[in-house]
Amino acid sequence: MPSYPHKQTYGARALNFTNPTAKSIFETLERKKSNLAVSVDVTKAEDLLAIIDAVGPYVCMIKTHVDILDDFDFSLIEQLQHLSEKHDFLYFEDRKFADIGNTVALQYSSGVHKIASWSHLTNAHPVPGPSIIKGLSSIGLPLGRGLLLLAEMSTKGSLAVGEYTEAAVRMARQHRDFVVGFIAQRRMEGIGAQAGEDVTDEDFLILTPGIGLESKGDAMGQQYRTPREAVLGSGCDVIIVGRGIYGTDPKAVNIIGAKAERYMAEGWAAYLERIASN
Amino acid sequence: MPSYPHKQTYGARALNFTNPTAKSIFETLERKKSNLAVSVDVTKAEDLLAIIDAVGPYVCMIKTHVDILDDFDFSLIEQLQHLSEKHDFLYFEDRKFADIGNTVALQYSSGVHKIASWSHLTNAHPVPGPSIIKGLSSIGLPLGRGLLLLAEMSTKGSLAVGEYTEAAVRMARQHRDFVVGFIAQRRMEGIGAQAGEDVTDEDFLILTPGIGLESKGDAMGQQYRTPREAVLGSGCDVIIVGRGIYGTDPKAVNIIGAKAERYMAEGWAAYLERIASN
Repeated sequence: MPSYPHKQTYGARALNFTNPTAKSIFETLERKKSNLAVSVDVTKAEDLLAIIDAVGPYVCMIKTHVDILDDFDFSLIEQLQHLSEKHDFLYFEDRKFADIGNTVALQYSSGVHKIASWSHLTNAHPVPGPSIIKGLSSIGLPLGRGLLLLAEMSTKGSLAVGEYTEAAVRMARQHRDFVVGFIAQRRMEGIGAQAGEDVTDEDFLILTPGIGLESKGDAMGQQYRTPREAVLGSGCDVIIVGRGIYGTDPKAVNIIGAKAERYMAEGWAAYLERIASN
Repeated sequence: MPSYPHKQTYGARALNFTNPTAKSIFETLERKKSNLAVSVDVTKAEDLLAIIDAVGPYVCMIKTHVDILDDFDFSLIEQLQHLSEKHDFLYFEDRKFADIGNTVALQYSSGVHKIASWSHLTNAHPVPGPSIIKGLSSIGLPLGRGLLLLAEMSTKGSLAVGEYTEAAVRMARQHRDFVVGFIAQRRMEGIGAQAGEDVTDEDFLILTPGIGLESKGDAMGQQYRTPREAVLGSGCDVIIVGRGIYGTDPKAVNIIGAKAERYMAEGWAAYLERIASN
């Protein structure tokens, strides 16, 4: 019998985790009354900073792809850290690590981006097997970082389904000190559990991409759901919104801020409805 | 009935491909009499250049992870290009793209590394579905680049097996202009073919990692096979060797060169035996 952790408040769920990043995330969700993560996929540092400053008041988390910034320089990290303190949110570098243990340990700690040194949360595909968690946790765990596994994807024709998803959850279950949850479309507690395995107190943080208020998809296979569908209908904890908020003009900070506020309100209302439906 | 393209010579197989990078790879294999790719996973540009210069005479390809270089600067690319002309080999940035189409297009074209601008070959996980190929080919195809899909992995507990592998091959089959082959452990022709589908002339380039003469594995789940097992036994086209060649001392260029020569000789002997066994 799986647990229903998503019927508890975010604040109460901070106590279900030992990982410091997981605790911080749930505490931030509760404190800011926002379960919105904004994904900022721009290629200029100036645009990244402007968008983060505009959406900062309304988010629990900023999702980055620092590897697409043409003018990335490590001094940018200080500016990013300043914004996270100013607006009280965490960073999630959406690196989608997907290599063998030895390689991902280097990719996480080294290179020009030094992701482990600043990103509270990152993610990995389970496809290489458990060695990818071992490699990443050798770097991230001493720093108090957290990892999400990609148990499902929101794209058409995704292969992260069925037995693949079950194997991902089993891998996470074996590494609860570092793996705090999933990129997924729904709750993952109890998925792929072995016969007789006790999963009654299980709690995973679920971040879900592919959220839109208006769009239904893009030309490259991305598919969309509304905040209410994701949070109330599917029990996801954090909604990730990208181009739906910052559109095509990174300079339109008033519009961007207003859109983030609207997504935040919709996501939070869905959460309140969810915990009230006990 | 699948074809047996690996019984043909590398030179003859260049004619089986329309993709310019695939043609170049097979022509280089034939011309240099080497089916060895060296994977150079170091964090200093100076060490990268020294190792490439040492193994250059013995390889068809250099496999890089530029994202682990602490002191990467785009001027390094010119030095890398100089070495590829000096020694006649191609670059394969082992990026393992694994995101949605819109994101991988940016990761491939942009950021500080601008992979598409210099790396002849790169690779991607099929897990997001066909949109990942669409995103990458929108950037790489106009530049004449080629893509490998990761159909299998050499790590313990890999999820790239069975139906996952079959789906990867079907995705490749639908995009033969850009997807030239696989990271895999064996031949992939005919895998996952639909009933009645004609795959008799199919030819995929197979690169295989996890090759060693001595080691049997590392502490992080990597498993090893010999060049003969991979090329003759399993029909792989290019063997990838990393730490087995450059070990722990990037300055020991004489030892590194001698090791590369030994792997090249073993890989080529296995290939000659393979095409003679018609």
